[in-house]
Amino acid sequence: MQTVINAVGREIPVELDGMKLRPFTGLFDNFPTGRKAGGYFGSHRPGDSKLLDSIDEAIDSCGLKDGMTVSFHHHLRNGDYVTNMVMKSIAEKGLKDITIAPSALFPCHAPLVDLMDQEVITRIEGSANGPVGDAISHGRLKGLSILRSHGGRVRAIESGELEIDVAFIAAPTADDQGNANGIHGRNTCGFLGYAMVDSMHARKVVVVTDNLVEYPSLPIQISADYVDYIVPVSSIGDNKKIVSGTTKIATDPQKLSIAQAALDLIVHSGTAREKMNFQAGAGGISLATTRFLGDWLKENNMACSFIDGGVTEHLIEIYNEGGCRKILNGQAFDVKSIKDMLTNNDHVAITPNYYANPWNKGCLVNILDTVVLGATEADINFNINVNTHSDGRLLHGIGGHQDTAAGAKLAIMMMPVFRKTNAIIRNRVTTVSTPFQSVDAIVTDMGIAINPARKDLLKKLEGSPLNVVAIEDLRDIAYAETGGVPEEPEYTDRIVSLVQFRDGTYLDTIHQLKE
Amino acid sequence: MQTVINAVGREIPVELDGMKLRPFTGLFDNFPTGRKAGGYFGSHRPGDSKLLDSIDEAIDSCGLKDGMTVSFHHHLRNGDYVTNMVMKSIAEKGLKDITIAPSALFPCHAPLVDLMDQEVITRIEGSANGPVGDAISHGRLKGLSILRSHGGRVRAIESGELEIDVAFIAAPTADDQGNANGIHGRNTCGFLGYAMVDSMHARKVVVVTDNLVEYPSLPIQISADYVDYIVPVSSIGDNKKIVSGTTKIATDPQKLSIAQAALDLIVHSGTAREKMNFQAGAGGISLATTRFLGDWLKENNMACSFIDGGVTEHLIEIYNEGGCRKILNGQAFDVKSIKDMLTNNDHVAITPNYYANPWNKGCLVNILDTVVLGATEADINFNINVNTHSDGRLLHGIGGHQDTAAGAKLAIMMMPVFRKTNAIIRNRVTTVSTPFQSVDAIVTDMGIAINPARKDLLKKLEGSPLNVVAIEDLRDIAYAETGGVPEEPEYTDRIVSLVQFRDGTYLDTIHQLKE
Repeated sequence: MQTVINAVGREIPVELDGMKLRPFTGLFDNFPTGRKAGGYFGSHRPGDSKLLDSIDEAIDSCGLKDGMTVSFHHHLRNGDYVTNMVMKSIAEKGLKDITIAPSALFPCHAPLVDLMDQEVITRIEGSANGPVGDAISHGRLKGLSILRSHGGRVRAIESGELEIDVAFIAAPTADDQGNANGIHGRNTCGFLGYAMVDSMHARKVVVVTDNLVEYPSLPIQISADYVDYIVPVSSIGDNKKIVSGTTKIATDPQKLSIAQAALDLIVHSGTAREKMNFQAGAGGISLATTRFLGDWLKENNMACSFIDGGVTEHLIEIYNEGGCRKILNGQAFDVKSIKDMLTNNDHVAITPNYYANPWNKGCLVNILDTVVLGATEADINFNINVNTHSDGRLLHGIGGHQDTAAGAKLAIMMMPVFRKTNAIIRNRVTTVSTPFQSVDAIVTDMGIAINPARKDLLKKLEGSPLNVVAIEDLRDIAYAETGGVPEEPEYTDRIVSLVQFRDGTYLDTIHQLKE
Repeated sequence: MQTVINAVGREIPVELDGMKLRPFTGLFDNFPTGRKAGGYFGSHRPGDSKLLDSIDEAIDSCGLKDGMTVSFHHHLRNGDYVTNMVMKSIAEKGLKDITIAPSALFPCHAPLVDLMDQEVITRIEGSANGPVGDAISHGRLKGLSILRSHGGRVRAIESGELEIDVAFIAAPTADDQGNANGIHGRNTCGFLGYAMVDSMHARKVVVVTDNLVEYPSLPIQISADYVDYIVPVSSIGDNKKIVSGTTKIATDPQKLSIAQAALDLIVHSGTAREKMNFQAGAGGISLATTRFLGDWLKENNMACSFIDGGVTEHLIEIYNEGGCRKILNGQAFDVKSIKDMLTNNDHVAITPNYYANPWNKGCLVNILDTVVLGATEADINFNINVNTHSDGRLLHGIGGHQDTAAGAKLAIMMMPVFRKTNAIIRNRVTTVSTPFQSVDAIVTDMGIAINPARKDLLKKLEGSPLNVVAIEDLRDIAYAETGGVPEEPEYTDRIVSLVQFRDGTYLDTIHQLKE
């Protein structure tokens, strides 16, 4: 296989499975010109009904065939029933070689692994958290998996790189023309932002709802003019399972010390100031940092211009205390943040396109002052891994990690130096998910490492009380505490997954594990 | 010139100015398959500023050249300053052969006529109300004018038929990234719906505002991810001039008698019922009918599922009285309706795409029960003219006339039998703006004519107290009262304007008047 070395030093095949792969070259190198791919024409006449009786009927009406691509969204996270429901119907029809393009998969989607074994699903373009990712690492998906960031997914769909035949949209509320929203009904999940691009670009669009209401269903999030069919079902999921580990604030002292150090960095770098733009990341440490920043703003009588992110009750609190003027909601992580959006004109939903698409006319991440992000590993070159564990298993998606790191003036990665027997700071990350070029600082429980490329930042921090250390020192501690240089996982030659940068170039490959 | 006769009996050239023209064949005959034209890629990097100092600088930055197309929207109606301001700058740069694609022009745009004479503007794709239309009729535009309905304009832009190089969007409020809305600032004009499709499909998008506010400007109507540049100016217009004749309710007895007859038709046809879907048209008689329907609903303790349309205070009143459950706002005609949208969750804005695009996956007009519309003329075949006066002068746009007539189960046209010395009901309309196939009834001050194709409706009205008459009788009265068969205007051979049906086929041509 012919390969090239990309700008983070990883080997990328020149061609794979018939796709020509462009290697990652840098953060803002790759912009096409001309027109994006458009949506699909419809042919609706007065009197035509869009309402169908079953998922089965929808699959038939959409003309779904072997080899086609279906998409799903993850607003219900680990409480989603629709993906399994649809894929079960597709399997029962005997369809094969389906590509699924979910915005993300969760442990609740474990039943899809059987369908991978049966070659109903043979390719996955989307995040695979948990058992599906694990199965991919063990070679149980016949074709490739492609991992993209939130912005990368929108870009791929809008540009025509990822073509979706049928988008299935789980909707907490919808009407018989297809207007849908996630803020009414018994399975509220906030703004249906991730599904917006699917609705506008898929060949056929099916809204699946457990709360069919009279036309017009308001507010209009998914708009009827993009919807082909509506299928009422008994339940689209269990929204109590939206809240997960990712969305709970840290409480243990180690994590809180990291969060405090991140705040100190934000303050001493001069980033914390009136009218700063802040993205609150998901994950316990990020949430704690957000809370600490809120306290700092309150004490100093300052307010952010906006905070964006996955929105939790902590953000609502900061807003209510006067710590930010507006909330831009990319995804709602709890009921309190969904409710706030209904009445607070300063709290509005934004699409992933608005937020992170690198090929539009300016996305939100480009004006971020700072973002705080978690990771599974970091290396001494400042590359970050969020996808695989150190044992080589694919277990997580990229989310907005690449996007916000690339855009923010100060991109802060937060992690402990080691976890149990696993060195987190190491010579080489198992997988490059976010390139070193976009990483400004790595904040740990044992010191803060600044990317040497950020000479300005290093200079600013001279004489500060921050514990600025060399990244190699952190690695040394990690190795000393975990029994030396970590063993590399053993892989086969087969590439099972590709890690795409947000601009469509390739950062890394993930290989099948040796059994 | 080779011509064909279309489905309303008008002669359509097979080819004109290098365009192949498809003749109108029927209401729902013409649906393409495949993908629409996409929007344009951007290449924004962190730190890139979108803010420019002047219109002049925006023209340069967008690379505007001779022969290109610029678009405008008409939310400020007769109070718009931006179109003239931009075209003056374009003229001063010495650019020639520009196509303008406004959603509509008004009397305030009279200065554009000079630019037509100077061949700065040589083609107009959009509605031309008043002096610009008049000048077109007199041959002062070098190239063609193309008239489209609201739905037809969106369709043309989305499908790629009408390509816009630079969209200039007058925004009552905007921030430095391009988020814009029409509900804050001193020149509020409601939802910027007409400009949405331009923002999403133009090669370059310039937001022009007289109220630049801090990021993020909320709500987001025009979204920053579609905007290339922002230009602050001292004033974008005078929103007191939004209110015009079109938006004032009728008061004279003749018009009120027509409105009453239209209500009677809605009631006796069985259309007035609980959960009906009603579109309120613009124009004094339509507004009066809407008010009468509101009273009827109140008396009968019923409510529409929704009323959509150009929204006026009369609709807000009906909503407040319980006469409709939701208001779908395509355009705000007064300050009261703009204010209501800010606080009323049952009153939401809709785009022209949602409302009327015949090539999407189902537009609002397809589920209308009834619409009441005005006209300048109707003929005994039930064709309707809204564009030209009987003297042949182009003076009005199509608006949503074609769209709603095609979609609504009961499309009602309202007009007097004659106006002064002008026969309104006649053998042949001066211009076919809306085809007879979509017209169900013509309601006049001297009786109601039902389209003979609507046998079901005629049957339903048998024995009703309605004054149902033959259309020929109305024509006879018109001719008797106005001095006999009207004289046709005298035209030259030159076609100056094309009347497009909403699906891109051609209904009629407008010729230059003989001087």
